[in-house]
Amino acid sequence: MDPQADIAVIGLAVMGQNLILNMNDHGYTVVAYNRTTSKVDEFLAVEAKGTRILGAHSLAEMVAQLKKPRRVMLMVKAGSAVDDFIEQLLPLLEPGDIVIDGGNSLFQDTIRRTKYVESKGLLYIGTGVSGGEEGARHGPSIMPGGSPAAWPHVQPIFQAIAAKATDPATGAQEPCCDWVGEGGAGHYVKMTHNGIEYGDMQLICEAYHLLKDGLGMSPDEMHTVFKTWNEGELQSYLIEITRDILAKKDDDGSPLVDKILDTAGQKGTGKWTVISSQDLGIPITLIAEAVYSRCVSALKDTRVQAAKAYKPGNTRLAGDRDAWIEDIRKALYASKIISYAQGYMLMRAAAQEHKWNLNYGGIALMWRGGCIIRSRFLGDIKAAFEKKPKLENLLFDPFFKKAIKGCVRSWRKVVSGAVKKGIPVPAFSTALAFFDGFRCERLPANLLQAQRDYFGAHTYERVDQPRGQFFHTNWTGTGGRVASGTYTV
Amino acid sequence: MDPQADIAVIGLAVMGQNLILNMNDHGYTVVAYNRTTSKVDEFLAVEAKGTRILGAHSLAEMVAQLKKPRRVMLMVKAGSAVDDFIEQLLPLLEPGDIVIDGGNSLFQDTIRRTKYVESKGLLYIGTGVSGGEEGARHGPSIMPGGSPAAWPHVQPIFQAIAAKATDPATGAQEPCCDWVGEGGAGHYVKMTHNGIEYGDMQLICEAYHLLKDGLGMSPDEMHTVFKTWNEGELQSYLIEITRDILAKKDDDGSPLVDKILDTAGQKGTGKWTVISSQDLGIPITLIAEAVYSRCVSALKDTRVQAAKAYKPGNTRLAGDRDAWIEDIRKALYASKIISYAQGYMLMRAAAQEHKWNLNYGGIALMWRGGCIIRSRFLGDIKAAFEKKPKLENLLFDPFFKKAIKGCVRSWRKVVSGAVKKGIPVPAFSTALAFFDGFRCERLPANLLQAQRDYFGAHTYERVDQPRGQFFHTNWTGTGGRVASGTYTV
Repeated sequence: MDPQADIAVIGLAVMGQNLILNMNDHGYTVVAYNRTTSKVDEFLAVEAKGTRILGAHSLAEMVAQLKKPRRVMLMVKAGSAVDDFIEQLLPLLEPGDIVIDGGNSLFQDTIRRTKYVESKGLLYIGTGVSGGEEGARHGPSIMPGGSPAAWPHVQPIFQAIAAKATDPATGAQEPCCDWVGEGGAGHYVKMTHNGIEYGDMQLICEAYHLLKDGLGMSPDEMHTVFKTWNEGELQSYLIEITRDILAKKDDDGSPLVDKILDTAGQKGTGKWTVISSQDLGIPITLIAEAVYSRCVSALKDTRVQAAKAYKPGNTRLAGDRDAWIEDIRKALYASKIISYAQGYMLMRAAAQEHKWNLNYGGIALMWRGGCIIRSRFLGDIKAAFEKKPKLENLLFDPFFKKAIKGCVRSWRKVVSGAVKKGIPVPAFSTALAFFDGFRCERLPANLLQAQRDYFGAHTYERVDQPRGQFFHTNWTGTGGRVASGTYTV
Repeated sequence: MDPQADIAVIGLAVMGQNLILNMNDHGYTVVAYNRTTSKVDEFLAVEAKGTRILGAHSLAEMVAQLKKPRRVMLMVKAGSAVDDFIEQLLPLLEPGDIVIDGGNSLFQDTIRRTKYVESKGLLYIGTGVSGGEEGARHGPSIMPGGSPAAWPHVQPIFQAIAAKATDPATGAQEPCCDWVGEGGAGHYVKMTHNGIEYGDMQLICEAYHLLKDGLGMSPDEMHTVFKTWNEGELQSYLIEITRDILAKKDDDGSPLVDKILDTAGQKGTGKWTVISSQDLGIPITLIAEAVYSRCVSALKDTRVQAAKAYKPGNTRLAGDRDAWIEDIRKALYASKIISYAQGYMLMRAAAQEHKWNLNYGGIALMWRGGCIIRSRFLGDIKAAFEKKPKLENLLFDPFFKKAIKGCVRSWRKVVSGAVKKGIPVPAFSTALAFFDGFRCERLPANLLQAQRDYFGAHTYERVDQPRGQFFHTNWTGTGGRVASGTYTV
């Protein structure tokens, strides 16, 4: 019998299983493989029962069932497992076959693997897949990069299973999947997505904290607030699930959210985003605060001890409650705009560094549906790049400029109120500090440059001389004639 | 003639030259070498004239002049130059000889190089040297790590040339140099020092910005403020040079600081500190904001454009000027305590990770003099660890607890005032947000864990169940039975 399968998927954890079921729904024949092969049998007997999904108990058996060019998608834990499977697959595949990594791999690994697999005559795709288990099952956001020649062969499958979203320019339903770029571009964009996701979640947590401790609201009351917010410009998946989480009751009928321990975990992609921003010199301050906030939350025992040493006072915000709720909503919205502006600054710098030709509007459209950060807001970002593809910074787009200006008064009220009452709002406040620094014509860095020149002879530029001319002052009158040019102090 | 030189120094940029002159002052015979050998002749003819400093025009000639075990110190640009010199030196040296890297090397490189040089039978030291050119000349802070067997051979020279500071416990003058630990420990502690230096400089810049734009003070008036501050608990090298910088006049008699362009450079060690903190999961939020602030300052053209799009309003702080000055001083002091607490959290985590037995009080004493962050304050940190060597966190020390409590009202006033007036104080405000999070018994991370469990089946712990038990809720009622265990969403 001729090979029947359109694609193989390796790895039957929840994401792998759901992607397979999704592909099956769209008429593709998938062959499933898992290192622990009993999982293959179980999957075929339970979740895949009654479908056309095939199974394999070895990679050779899997490959034998694939049409050419063969498409093999890895849905395994990022890291060495991906390299191991590539090594095992290479002798079984032929030139022109395609290896796809759908895990959350580090983009540098994907750059390396693309080169390596291409050097063997095969093609490689490293793709971000976002949307959690529900997204994988019913329509994720898919962000593929790697070997451009592989794209036509995976495009039909990926775009079929991807979520669909309305393009604000055309009104048409478009798949939340398009080619991102060469090498590690797909995983870079997915990494940035995850960093932004960290930020969005932290912003919602800070709003929740303010509603809870600043206004003394119950989960049911907050449920109503998030329900209302989800009907306006904050409409998004994360606001929607927050609304539902706040309504969820434990077995005893009390709010489940109150029973959950306040120590957040993390899996690494937020951290990678911050590290990349440090390498590129891009201030994604909000994502960094979001990652650090998870670190602070993890110090539960220390915090309990610190709460005894430094007793918080009364945290109630004085004044009209409904006005505060609207102020908090605006502070969240403005902070969110800053976070996305920072995320786009990061992608722009990475594209320059790696010579990727990123389509910024296309990325917004890819994130518009399917993924965790999907929102109405991303349609506005798409529209901004539609109007001006070379837009230097989201904050210069008229829509977002107007939005920020409409929020700034509330934003300052909320951050200063939280600061006075001792409610930590690290993301709200770093967003505001960034905004105030970003639109500050003259920052105090002149003093900093003077300090660096004073102790390290690092030199400085002058406001009254052309850029690129460097001056050194002998501040103490005792320094020598030698500058620090080649020595890093 | 028998070899005469006690130590060789390679690299005649300002730090190398000054270290050599310093060693010469203390009775050591140094042989100087530089890749561009004309610099050797120049140095001997000018700066080293009339001293007992020797020169060499090749590494072989340099090595031939050294007493055994030979001590060769590299003062070259961190990176591949260090590896290149190690390769060139290895065939010229003998077992027991010592290669010392005094540059700002990445600690991972020092870990690698220590192992490599030891594998050749030689000994290796990677040492931080701080204090800029003045420190190098008259007494730097020196933070050596690497091969423990090398320490006795370099200890006399290093401790002779190092700065001296009073040990608060004994009242004795102690050298600002002691053995830090194996492998990369010395460079790690130096890296953390530099990160803290970034933070200290940013804090001073924010205070300066508030005095300048919030209170409308002139450089001369601010000079007086910093002069006063330098006589109290903020007494430190960086406050002292800020005082002097503010008094410095340009050739035309106007304040020089006003002529300096507000775009700060950076050399990488601040960035490394942030990256390491991300790897270790330690929230050094203040250093991160300091690094990002330099990035924002570098966007000068964008900022000028943004200042037109988002015009700042009136930035004057209302109320008594002297009261504000004291409030700003207290906000700076409290923020500084937070930054050092975060830096010590980082070193503690790194020590655990790399199995270094760091002496935290000893590190404070090493930083007490000679280096850029030297301050009275570090004596207080030394005293805290003296009282309680196992102190978990600086914020639990009674002295610092009292200090924070004495500042917290002013700190909130300054941050909320700056927020309302649109003066960016990212470091002041992240320090306060960290403090409020650190002493918050119940953070909103319960909601975040609920979100992660909702979209990614990441599970959560419960407040009413023992730690280490993980629960998953089928939030939508439609999820499957498979958890996300092995797949990183």
